[in-house]
Amino acid sequence: MFIKNTWYVIAWDKEVTGDGLFSRTVIGVPVLMYRTEDGKLVAMEDRCCHRGAPLSIGKRDGDCVRCMYHGLKFDATGQCVEAPAQPRIPPQAKVRTFPVVQQHRWIWIWMGDPAKADAGLIPQTPWLDHPDWRSLDGYIHYDVNYLLICDNLLDFSHLPFVHPTTLGGGTDYASFPPKVERLDNGVRVTRWALDTEPPAFVKAVRKEWVGKKVDRWNIYNFTLPAVLIMDSGNAPAGTGAPEGRRVDAVEFRGCQAITPETGNSTHYFFAQPHNFSIDNPEVTKSIHQNIVKAFEEDRAIITAQQKNLAIDPEFKMVPFAMDAALSQFRWAVTRRLEQEAAEAAAARVPQPVTLHREPI
Amino acid sequence: MFIKNTWYVIAWDKEVTGDGLFSRTVIGVPVLMYRTEDGKLVAMEDRCCHRGAPLSIGKRDGDCVRCMYHGLKFDATGQCVEAPAQPRIPPQAKVRTFPVVQQHRWIWIWMGDPAKADAGLIPQTPWLDHPDWRSLDGYIHYDVNYLLICDNLLDFSHLPFVHPTTLGGGTDYASFPPKVERLDNGVRVTRWALDTEPPAFVKAVRKEWVGKKVDRWNIYNFTLPAVLIMDSGNAPAGTGAPEGRRVDAVEFRGCQAITPETGNSTHYFFAQPHNFSIDNPEVTKSIHQNIVKAFEEDRAIITAQQKNLAIDPEFKMVPFAMDAALSQFRWAVTRRLEQEAAEAAAARVPQPVTLHREPI
Amino acid sequence: MFIKNTWYVIAWDKEVTGDGLFSRTVIGVPVLMYRTEDGKLVAMEDRCCHRGAPLSIGKRDGDCVRCMYHGLKFDATGQCVEAPAQPRIPPQAKVRTFPVVQQHRWIWIWMGDPAKADAGLIPQTPWLDHPDWRSLDGYIHYDVNYLLICDNLLDFSHLPFVHPTTLGGGTDYASFPPKVERLDNGVRVTRWALDTEPPAFVKAVRKEWVGKKVDRWNIYNFTLPAVLIMDSGNAPAGTGAPEGRRVDAVEFRGCQAITPETGNSTHYFFAQPHNFSIDNPEVTKSIHQNIVKAFEEDRAIITAQQKNLAIDPEFKMVPFAMDAALSQFRWAVTRRLEQEAAEAAAARVPQPVTLHREPI
Repeated sequence: MFIKNTWYVIAWDKEVTGDGLFSRTVIGVPVLMYRTEDGKLVAMEDRCCHRGAPLSIGKRDGDCVRCMYHGLKFDATGQCVEAPAQPRIPPQAKVRTFPVVQQHRWIWIWMGDPAKADAGLIPQTPWLDHPDWRSLDGYIHYDVNYLLICDNLLDFSHLPFVHPTTLGGGTDYASFPPKVERLDNGVRVTRWALDTEPPAFVKAVRKEWVGKKVDRWNIYNFTLPAVLIMDSGNAPAGTGAPEGRRVDAVEFRGCQAITPETGNSTHYFFAQPHNFSIDNPEVTKSIHQNIVKAFEEDRAIITAQQKNLAIDPEFKMVPFAMDAALSQFRWAVTRRLEQEAAEAAAARVPQPVTLHREPI
Repeated sequence: MFIKNTWYVIAWDKEVTGDGLFSRTVIGVPVLMYRTEDGKLVAMEDRCCHRGAPLSIGKRDGDCVRCMYHGLKFDATGQCVEAPAQPRIPPQAKVRTFPVVQQHRWIWIWMGDPAKADAGLIPQTPWLDHPDWRSLDGYIHYDVNYLLICDNLLDFSHLPFVHPTTLGGGTDYASFPPKVERLDNGVRVTRWALDTEPPAFVKAVRKEWVGKKVDRWNIYNFTLPAVLIMDSGNAPAGTGAPEGRRVDAVEFRGCQAITPETGNSTHYFFAQPHNFSIDNPEVTKSIHQNIVKAFEEDRAIITAQQKNLAIDPEFKMVPFAMDAALSQFRWAVTRRLEQEAAEAAAARVPQPVTLHREPI
Repeated sequence: MFIKNTWYVIAWDKEVTGDGLFSRTVIGVPVLMYRTEDGKLVAMEDRCCHRGAPLSIGKRDGDCVRCMYHGLKFDATGQCVEAPAQPRIPPQAKVRTFPVVQQHRWIWIWMGDPAKADAGLIPQTPWLDHPDWRSLDGYIHYDVNYLLICDNLLDFSHLPFVHPTTLGGGTDYASFPPKVERLDNGVRVTRWALDTEPPAFVKAVRKEWVGKKVDRWNIYNFTLPAVLIMDSGNAPAGTGAPEGRRVDAVEFRGCQAITPETGNSTHYFFAQPHNFSIDNPEVTKSIHQNIVKAFEEDRAIITAQQKNLAIDPEFKMVPFAMDAALSQFRWAVTRRLEQEAAEAAAARVPQPVTLHREPI
């Protein structure tokens, strides 16, 4: 149901503190996270291997965590290292752990075969902690399947309709057709809206553009499992932005990661770094607030859509040309799921999720 | 699961205003309703054919409605007539519409094959807007399957038990056996209670009858899908009402329509027109308030019943003689459902509900 | 799914009053209880055999109960004895009744074959109404399957972890291995913790023991369906308690009954009788309050466990030595369920739960 051999964003770095026990469910698996004394990130199933109690309501004990049901203690590798009064600790008493990497403010987790976890595959989001860029941390929880959010992000023709007072600018925005290119693991979407009204969230921080026209671009890669990295911006109309001259432009590097929580709920991590007015926190705040407001607009329409789809699972959607990118992305998801299913069948071994049932 | 080729009450006429977008789910299908500028009623699926977003949270654009997810515009026939920046509109981009008829204050909808929608089949409820009659509009939402409400209305022997202070009159009411006749599409129930105490809601508006006896009648057709049209009233005992002489009588023409929302919820529309004291709004109000109170009494017992039945789907009811009318009606429902299933199979065509997936 | 031929605690005696109608669901069956004028307990299905309405929202009529939907009256044997205006009462119009026994403050019900209901099989809890013992009545409702609560009670090694400030005493408690013996219908668990810190709830009523050591025992039978009867206590360390000399001891006779409500919810009845300071209600209250607090601690961890288990029904628990008692008890439950299934198949008759569908 979910892609396993891939990196998912599980948290903002600040969410996992040094002494706490942080819990978040990813693709249906509850995950406990904490940091060891030397700062190393630990991610393990948030479920004691003994009777299934959540470890996150247990207690830290040095670099270990103790389940507060029967007192079993697990080290950072998930191995049970102490069991009160037990003659012996069963060797299979081990909680599954997951590869995790912290990179540019996001913590990424690999829910599949640990042997395949190559940190080099993690998308780059350098603007999240680069001194020339500013942004605030965004997170929204959705009660819908993650693919409906992907659909939304893969077709910006909804901007003037869903976001008239935030991301929307000229009502002609939808009439500029995007270019959609297939990538190895997703799609690349390029949309230029020329000689158009700047979007409201840009006018809010560049008041002198009210009444003026801009050339506006949104160029992004949307790759598996569901990560959007976008170069977007606006420059005064006709100053050469389409040809690469960004004169007096406002630029953003949108970073968005959609992580399935369950089949019906999703984590949405986002930030909208900008490289202008970086010494003015009010600008950063204004941009962030408008983005949050816009994403709540998305959440409202997508949640309404999800309810409508749930009423009739047989409902067949009529495809339009604007669905090109989302159709390609959904095809890439399906292809990857089939590939993982085939690999699992070929290996004739239990899925990684059952590793903790195996003898060590 | 539901009868399709029939007229359902979907709304009171005033609920669908000139400029709004009204949404109500009928037999599991969300329906959008509005009125065109020339006053014509429009009913279409409240689900954009593109990605399933509710059209009712969209916007009116003249006689059209625009989906506020991606801006698709649909005319009053459900045809997509505008799609921002699309090279072409797919011909199958059409939202299903439904025949609707406004008649005597109620709006009726036909959820089945439009070719079979004969307005002449709609039950007549002239008292709802006749100058000689008065009533107020009633609506209650139920969280039970509609057939449990039908059961209740098909056996008035519950009156003295469920409604002792509202519809109930003499405790002997249940002891007057009803006559049950089979109709083509339902049943006709006739019950005369002679020389009995008048019901509380009548005594409330005819105080001189307190302590007196009346002859009381409830004569109604209960027809598919679930519509009750009733001649009921009271006259001083022994003045000849059973023989057709209604001297100093209080008369009502109860109109009740039960419309399934989903398998587990129901819309209940009702009114209790009276033709006496029509210039005294307090009388109309008193009658209505007592009816509402009584129907809430029904809702309490039926909802408790539904919870009990849900616990054990295997529960077998023991039939009593008082179940004659409801048994016949349930049999009529089953027969009609079987008939529709047979017709659908014979036609070897998609069910009406899938029309919007077909090329035009 | 549940054992039927066994005695379940359904209520504290005071819950079923003389003139009321008491309703509680046991193993998925709603049960109505009341007392006849001569004090006899009545337990019948809380579901009218006619249309399934709850009898508990009906009315008492002498020793009978009247369903307030259509007025059917049932006597204390469940037989329908009055039906308004019916030409005849169908002989099968009978609501199923259940054997019930009140014994030592608890009311026990037999949900299976009445012919097998032997009151001699009811566990003895004399301390609940013995003049030499004091306790308060405890009841907690759980939203988990009853077996998770049984697991908890069958392994007291959780005491120092879940109950550090209530039932927990020395942190070494878990290191004293219990002796587990198989009984015909359950298990017997004996645990002695020697020269250990007294538990907090004991120190609260025996302040002179703060800083002292005790010998502590918990010796209990845990028998089908799920009843715990425990001899527990503390005596000054080394005064001979293990050898049977209880000098200056505090003693308790814990009585706990776990009754499944549905597959996902449970009734938990309990009391902690003590035989010291019986003239001091503050002592009784202190003990009870600490027990309630402790049992709420159990409820928190077990409910969290249940949520975690629900996420992944495939989760396989790793057994530890401390699971000996619960494993044996679960095995006893399974064996009994299989036995009842085999008996039902052999008898080739409807299960007792369908008795009311049979002609009398």
